Amino acid sequence: MSVLIVTATYKNYLCNLILCTHMKAEIIAIGDELLTGQTVDTNSAWIATELNRAGIEVTGISAIPDRAARIIRILENAIRRSQLVLITGGLGPTSDDITKKTLCEFFGTRLVRNQSVLDNISQLLGRRGVALNAANISQADVPESCMVLMNKMGTAPGMWFEKDGAVIVSVPGVPYEMKHIVSDHVIPELQKRGIVTEIIHRNIMTYGLPEAQLAEKLTGFEARLPGEIKLAYLPSSGVIKLRLTARCDDAGKALNLLDQQTAILKATIPELIFAEYEASLEEVIGKELSDRAMTFATAESCTGGNISRLITSVPGSSAYFLGSVTAYSNSIKKTLLGVKEKTINNYGAVSVECAGEMAEGIRILTGCDISVATTGIAGPSGATPGKPVGTVCIAVSSDGGTHSGQFVFGTDRLLNIRRFSIAALDMLRRQIISH
Amino acid sequence: MSVLIVTATYKNYLCNLILCTHMKAEIIAIGDELLTGQTVDTNSAWIATELNRAGIEVTGISAIPDRAARIIRILENAIRRSQLVLITGGLGPTSDDITKKTLCEFFGTRLVRNQSVLDNISQLLGRRGVALNAANISQADVPESCMVLMNKMGTAPGMWFEKDGAVIVSVPGVPYEMKHIVSDHVIPELQKRGIVTEIIHRNIMTYGLPEAQLAEKLTGFEARLPGEIKLAYLPSSGVIKLRLTARCDDAGKALNLLDQQTAILKATIPELIFAEYEASLEEVIGKELSDRAMTFATAESCTGGNISRLITSVPGSSAYFLGSVTAYSNSIKKTLLGVKEKTINNYGAVSVECAGEMAEGIRILTGCDISVATTGIAGPSGATPGKPVGTVCIAVSSDGGTHSGQFVFGTDRLLNIRRFSIAALDMLRRQIISH
Repeated sequence: MSVLIVTATYKNYLCNLILCTHMKAEIIAIGDELLTGQTVDTNSAWIATELNRAGIEVTGISAIPDRAARIIRILENAIRRSQLVLITGGLGPTSDDITKKTLCEFFGTRLVRNQSVLDNISQLLGRRGVALNAANISQADVPESCMVLMNKMGTAPGMWFEKDGAVIVSVPGVPYEMKHIVSDHVIPELQKRGIVTEIIHRNIMTYGLPEAQLAEKLTGFEARLPGEIKLAYLPSSGVIKLRLTARCDDAGKALNLLDQQTAILKATIPELIFAEYEASLEEVIGKELSDRAMTFATAESCTGGNISRLITSVPGSSAYFLGSVTAYSNSIKKTLLGVKEKTINNYGAVSVECAGEMAEGIRILTGCDISVATTGIAGPSGATPGKPVGTVCIAVSSDGGTHSGQFVFGTDRLLNIRRFSIAALDMLRRQIISH
Repeated sequence: MSVLIVTATYKNYLCNLILCTHMKAEIIAIGDELLTGQTVDTNSAWIATELNRAGIEVTGISAIPDRAARIIRILENAIRRSQLVLITGGLGPTSDDITKKTLCEFFGTRLVRNQSVLDNISQLLGRRGVALNAANISQADVPESCMVLMNKMGTAPGMWFEKDGAVIVSVPGVPYEMKHIVSDHVIPELQKRGIVTEIIHRNIMTYGLPEAQLAEKLTGFEARLPGEIKLAYLPSSGVIKLRLTARCDDAGKALNLLDQQTAILKATIPELIFAEYEASLEEVIGKELSDRAMTFATAESCTGGNISRLITSVPGSSAYFLGSVTAYSNSIKKTLLGVKEKTINNYGAVSVECAGEMAEGIRILTGCDISVATTGIAGPSGATPGKPVGTVCIAVSSDGGTHSGQFVFGTDRLLNIRRFSIAALDMLRRQIISH
């Protein structure tokens, strides 16, 4: 790790700041609401993404209550380990927000009225037609030793401190205010100081093998990865995102290494990869349908509209999606989709035969080019001999014929609905790209 | 803080465990993906909510990378401060998951094969038709000194350790596996050890007013709340959960106070409350339909199947839900649902007239007792003069007639789809209970 000395001149003071080319950062989120579970801390993941993109490694994220002693103890530890500490929250005008007072104590400074901040607050509240009160005015009091990071989106300013070779930044917890200050002030200030290590991620989306089986298949690939590249498995409802992370001194080398390893990965598991970038199956399907000017419709039983919902979650889906029928009752399967009475009698509603007739039925009904149908048992009840909860039959129909399959997943209803839907989308995608 | 000694007997060992009636807990989330920002840590907020509900105060939440040294250091500190440490993540079968190995090091124990865990893994994978490989089998190796918390939803078991008067529990990071183990094993084990629950929550579900307006309406109610009761607003897609929290020495008094305040709340906003317990609109609708032996179907355009998905997410919905049509294209609206050409020409597809014909059409098509239909502009494109993105027309049809309304929400596609669906469910619920 190389170390350089940066001399930074600010409006109010001059200091010598030691920064590392491979900077380590910690994020501290302050607020009782995080510890009671009332608020999910989405800020820290957003900040972590931005810092990583800027080449800064985040080594820890903490959430602590609005207690001065806790804030001081965690700051003392953090600046020993890290060159950057980013604090969110506790800057509101109410009495439970104590961050600013506590930072004064930690940095041995005092609050002083800042006219620019006061002007900004007057302007913001004026626009909303709100009169300034004492609580608002107190938000213009800032620690004397900090550099103010102006908040154009709200009344609490960001604050930049330096101590013992570390940068400590405090920003509000309101997500859009925090994002504005981090993007428009914190990252540019850090970039000015010449941080150069590049961390670049590449995501490869797979479906078709569970994590352990995929990992087994990739044992050799992983063992032969160059030292600068790490592989992570990020599974979600059957889809596994493979993330390659390159950590290099220069971005060009990192991108080259990622290109090489992505090519090897593609050659190793070509049949499992559905995208070489972060994408959902429904997005990839939308793109493949658009590329082929094909239209699509779906007939759902056990997935209850979820496939339709996923497809229509993609902006522009009306260009290729005609519609769907959720045939929850057998009578709808027969009257609307034309499933034959004897198919249900002979094979049951949960059968590849029924799924096939549903897929053909919706294709005829809507006049679409390709369709997918599902029928199964999401649970908790509905199991029959030989067909446990978790069974799903899926069929895809197009002018190339009707393909179907039967799968068994788990026992949890909501999870089954998700897994069934993803399995159906994958079968659909494979049939689309064969066109 | 009073302290009591609990003697706990397990299958394999006997220990004296010191627990506090006011227990402090910390949550540690392990995984590089949390520190790169690729994954938002939603687990910790969920766990914090559950622990708070059980009367346990969460004093810190941390996210750290998959590094043995960091895991050990944070555990050393955590057990000095807290009586309960809950660790999530890092239990997958792949080489980047090192939690189990590190826990062995921390507790001075070794991995031993656990036959019950192996049986569970075989069963889970067997159901999915997947053959066991070495990585799967290795998940049955658990630290010798731990009590295994069986994971019925996945292959990685939870683990319960005790050291220096603290309980340390490790659970997988996959949210539904984590939730299962915490709810079904961790909380019951803690309850067995006599932690006195002093915090009781009551949830009252509302729809119909935004948060600020609801808060204004409840200003007087809030001001007159007894000191032991706190009110919180928990909004989500238009539904606002009002949570009354009682903090008392005795549960009987807490329940009495909650009953009293709930009655006052009901008298204050009777038209907004749809449940006096934690419930979704789709669950309440299911109950109301079942109570009246009514059947239901839906015709969706802009909500794209989401209403159908929400309704079928409720176990047992096949008793009242017949099915749905997602009529994304106008031709499906006309051919399947019988919307008149001239209705679309005169009023547009996004109109209360079209919604009304869609609701009547699906009722005729399926023979259901009551139906709901949506047509709107989820965005980002599709706005027309006088109908901005975020516009939705909703109609409910039954033998009592067809009722419709037009609403305007925001500009975000996914959020609009959720808001449209919730608005439709609320209109449906009001019509059902008038029957």
